[in-house]
Amino acid sequence: MSIILFVQTIKLKNPAYIVGSFSIAGKREGEGPLGKTFNKVEQDEYLGMKTHEQAETEMFKIAMEEAIKSTGLRESDIDVMLSGDLLNQITSSSFAARDFDVPFIGLYGACSTMSLSLAVGSLFVAGGFAKNVLVASGSHFATAERQYRMPLELGSTRPPTAQWTATGVGASVLSDKNIDGLPPVKITTVTFGQVVDWGVVDVNDMGSAMAPAAADTIERHLKNTKTRPEDYDAIYTGDLGILGSKILKKLLKDKKINISKNHKDCGEMLFNEKQNGTQWQGASGCGCSAITLNGYILKKLRAGDYKKILFVSTGALLSPVSSFQGNTIPGIAHAVVINFGG
Amino acid sequence: MSIILFVQTIKLKNPAYIVGSFSIAGKREGEGPLGKTFNKVEQDEYLGMKTHEQAETEMFKIAMEEAIKSTGLRESDIDVMLSGDLLNQITSSSFAARDFDVPFIGLYGACSTMSLSLAVGSLFVAGGFAKNVLVASGSHFATAERQYRMPLELGSTRPPTAQWTATGVGASVLSDKNIDGLPPVKITTVTFGQVVDWGVVDVNDMGSAMAPAAADTIERHLKNTKTRPEDYDAIYTGDLGILGSKILKKLLKDKKINISKNHKDCGEMLFNEKQNGTQWQGASGCGCSAITLNGYILKKLRAGDYKKILFVSTGALLSPVSSFQGNTIPGIAHAVVINFGG
Repeated sequence: MSIILFVQTIKLKNPAYIVGSFSIAGKREGEGPLGKTFNKVEQDEYLGMKTHEQAETEMFKIAMEEAIKSTGLRESDIDVMLSGDLLNQITSSSFAARDFDVPFIGLYGACSTMSLSLAVGSLFVAGGFAKNVLVASGSHFATAERQYRMPLELGSTRPPTAQWTATGVGASVLSDKNIDGLPPVKITTVTFGQVVDWGVVDVNDMGSAMAPAAADTIERHLKNTKTRPEDYDAIYTGDLGILGSKILKKLLKDKKINISKNHKDCGEMLFNEKQNGTQWQGASGCGCSAITLNGYILKKLRAGDYKKILFVSTGALLSPVSSFQGNTIPGIAHAVVINFGG
Repeated sequence: MSIILFVQTIKLKNPAYIVGSFSIAGKREGEGPLGKTFNKVEQDEYLGMKTHEQAETEMFKIAMEEAIKSTGLRESDIDVMLSGDLLNQITSSSFAARDFDVPFIGLYGACSTMSLSLAVGSLFVAGGFAKNVLVASGSHFATAERQYRMPLELGSTRPPTAQWTATGVGASVLSDKNIDGLPPVKITTVTFGQVVDWGVVDVNDMGSAMAPAAADTIERHLKNTKTRPEDYDAIYTGDLGILGSKILKKLLKDKKINISKNHKDCGEMLFNEKQNGTQWQGASGCGCSAITLNGYILKKLRAGDYKKILFVSTGALLSPVSSFQGNTIPGIAHAVVINFGG
């Protein structure tokens, strides 16, 4: 029996092995510092489709199919798929799922969806409810701009707190067995986050809206598991960006938790300084932590550079309507512990 | 260990007891045939709030709080909450979740969300990952019209295939123990549905879009569990409405499965004939099956009128953007078996 630790942290008795993964990224992401770690970099922002929304669906399909292929399993071996994205009614996930003969569970956690899907998916495996689970998340710059901000054609100036929605999809396959026999990469503990709202109203400042949720989840996780930041080779947050990461470290420092030595943020890492010169606080979007995990981070784990990391995707749970109506922006963050070896 | 039956059906070794519930409904729903079975009927479509969206969030809060209260448990006893709704970025669920000191998992399954949240929630309980789980789903006529259709002020004529989005929220508390000691109501088997798309493009005909998904899930469920329709005292679909229900029965009859004797559809049941005279095919929306389950159906189970039912909420996974871009409408349906007694 798995152990429920203090409400929201679950230590899995049977780990969920990450046996396959795939990351597909856009041109801009491919030109960034992590570009070489992605399995595929698309030069065409339309992927040959008629609309950006269809292109996003296409990226999901490719990442899902290739993640399954990377394991040597067949589609029929996958018991269930869990996926979510930023689009209204998560259409890129569900339209992609049409092409799979696999039960589908739609998740919505905004940009926290990669760790959310890993966390829920690993419970399916750990509970014996599935042998193999496909999880995915992603985003597309152009569809997010259309939906949340301004028509691209306006060429609006970006305020200095803004981030740039990543174009890319990451998919992972979780399994109850370490199929390939190599030293295993596995999810051993999950912490589900609460909705945290500190009253941020600026829709161009997602980092500030999400940082309190990230701090809350990390603090609870460390307390519940009786671990310290230095027990992890790295603590990755999803897409707080440069400003949001500063706020996170300050908030935790105020609680006497110092993560500065091993904290990394996918939003800070995805683009280079020159790119961030116009994109300000770095990357964001479901795709940001999804491709960083399924590209860069899993490679570092498999190479033995990390033995144990904490992966914490972060989401801002606003909608354009909620903000137009004057509401504040709630945030959420879910955490998974990923181990290598042993 | 729970048993995975043929890919998508899971027979739970440890059942999830439904130990609490609450249903809050709008005025129109209160005037319908099931009106007296709802815990609360709201006369004010704004619930004292400034916008319909805030009113929807308020309904979620009330249903969630009251469902917990109905069990005698405290909020701190709830390990995790799962909820979803129709609004972009499921803001009514996540904004309601702000007020709870409980980890939150956002789901999106359109109108299939009540059975989806029951299915996933029951796995948390059955797997030993949570002792008590809160699940909820709901909708509001005015927010759905604004988002999916026309401004209410236009007074648009409704086409004859249209359904009327229910105003209401239903919430249930699942537990690993039958807290109250009365004959138990429990979830014993779940079947997760696949995305099914038969090419319907008419956004005013959700019943036709969802019926193939309902047929697919019911057929698979019966096959996987080796049960027949008559093994269930009732088979409830979510919100196929009058037309969609006819299509479902025809599709299953073509496969030599006759559910006509015990099929009921929450969308057909929620309004009376006079109401349906202007609302055509009946009710729809996440709230439709959510309040019918947490109002009418659970009362029938607790009264011993049913020993075993199949509850199958159904969802149409479109967005206004996907339809404007000429895409077809995918459907999905998730099923849970609810038993009484024993």
